[in-house]
Amino acid sequence: MLPPDVAAGARLAHVGIAVRDLEEAVAFYRDVLGLVPHPPQVADGATIVGLSLGESAIELLTAADQQSPIGKFLARHGPGIHHLCFRVPDLGAALARCRAAGYRLIDTEPRRGADGCRIAFLHPKSTAGILLELTD
Amino acid sequence: MLPPDVAAGARLAHVGIAVRDLEEAVAFYRDVLGLVPHPPQVADGATIVGLSLGESAIELLTAADQQSPIGKFLARHGPGIHHLCFRVPDLGAALARCRAAGYRLIDTEPRRGADGCRIAFLHPKSTAGILLELTD
Repeated sequence: MLPPDVAAGARLAHVGIAVRDLEEAVAFYRDVLGLVPHPPQVADGATIVGLSLGESAIELLTAADQQSPIGKFLARHGPGIHHLCFRVPDLGAALARCRAAGYRLIDTEPRRGADGCRIAFLHPKSTAGILLELTD
Repeated sequence: MLPPDVAAGARLAHVGIAVRDLEEAVAFYRDVLGLVPHPPQVADGATIVGLSLGESAIELLTAADQQSPIGKFLARHGPGIHHLCFRVPDLGAALARCRAAGYRLIDTEPRRGADGCRIAFLHPKSTAGILLELTD
């Protein structure tokens, strides 16, 4: 049984989308959905443009470094959805629940991601092929 | 220039995830994130379990019919993220903007999807390989 704050608090923080052409990808979200792109930033060898919509955001990622995780993903799979990020009230507690339930973690402890947020990735082998990021 | 209601109104309605085993997939979202699964429903040949989190939702989809779009997706790609759905203030206006900007539509007019919502899909060839659904 999860504590009530867990059930109440999870949110879809962002969807990370790997793209080859940032400008072309930004155009759809800006011109069709009316979203406003944030200034680009670099994290984990990726150039990232975020676009907020309500509680969630789209993160468009392209390779700043071809050997980065996004560079390798684009080389292997081509453009597409790269990961989902969920915001949880207590990242440490969420990672403990993952460990207890046998989910495989890429980051066993929280580390700093874009914008200085605390993040941790779960391995896609654990979650039906989907790379999941948790943050708080 | 988009009217202000477009810029203010877009939301990420849900992320559609194709899975082979609904029970196994539900377990992560229920046990780690504390989400409450909705009763299963069937639409477009898929059995769908939704899980709400704030303004957004996760839609877990498996094949009720192997010849359905989800059945074919699972056969070709295996489990993974299948589509993103954005809620817009005016679906007709959003489709008109898509047509004007040259995006290829699967549904040129809104049709009824799960829960009786009005929906329309864009073709992934138009949007960097991502199947996008619009709803209002």
